[in-house]
Amino acid sequence: MAGDYNGEQMATDGSIPENVVLIGKKPPMNYVLAVVTQFNNGARSVKVRARGNAISRAVDVAEISRHRFVNDVRVENIAISSEEISNEDGTRSKVSAIEITLAR
Amino acid sequence: MAGDYNGEQMATDGSIPENVVLIGKKPPMNYVLAVVTQFNNGARSVKVRARGNAISRAVDVAEISRHRFVNDVRVENIAISSEEISNEDGTRSKVSAIEITLAR
Repeated sequence: MAGDYNGEQMATDGSIPENVVLIGKKPPMNYVLAVVTQFNNGARSVKVRARGNAISRAVDVAEISRHRFVNDVRVENIAISSEEISNEDGTRSKVSAIEITLAR
Repeated sequence: MAGDYNGEQMATDGSIPENVVLIGKKPPMNYVLAVVTQFNNGARSVKVRARGNAISRAVDVAEISRHRFVNDVRVENIAISSEEISNEDGTRSKVSAIEITLAR
């Protein structure tokens, strides 16, 4: 179901592990739908990942998913990290990242 | 040292517990300075709190603080939640929140 994932980050990452939803710039409900779909397809856990400004949206997606759609799901883990990204001019800069693991 | 805190959220919250840095719309380094100051003043832990779009900035502040300024500090806990806020027109809406606990 690679089509459920957001294309922007998939292109840079190469491959996407299962049960991961990468948060981009679309409205939060698009990603909530992806999370809920994974749980409805039998997933025991789903990781919600974001970088930079999308981090706020990742928290929204996790909160909306568990409060409104899949009530038996809890936040199993939250990890923050810094990633180095290459800019178009060849310089490198750091960007914060978050990974929220939802599990039932 | 109430002056280190960001005024917007302090007004609605009433009182601010010690060792809490509320993230608002200022540049991240302002809040990093507040975090580092608290640790330099002997705090064993500092909570970084934010709501809505400031959540991304809170993660930046935590990451910059522990990687660049106080290297013996680790992320002790991260909690996400939903808070209800009153809009100016009397309606209520939900906003996501994060609390990152840094500890040495």
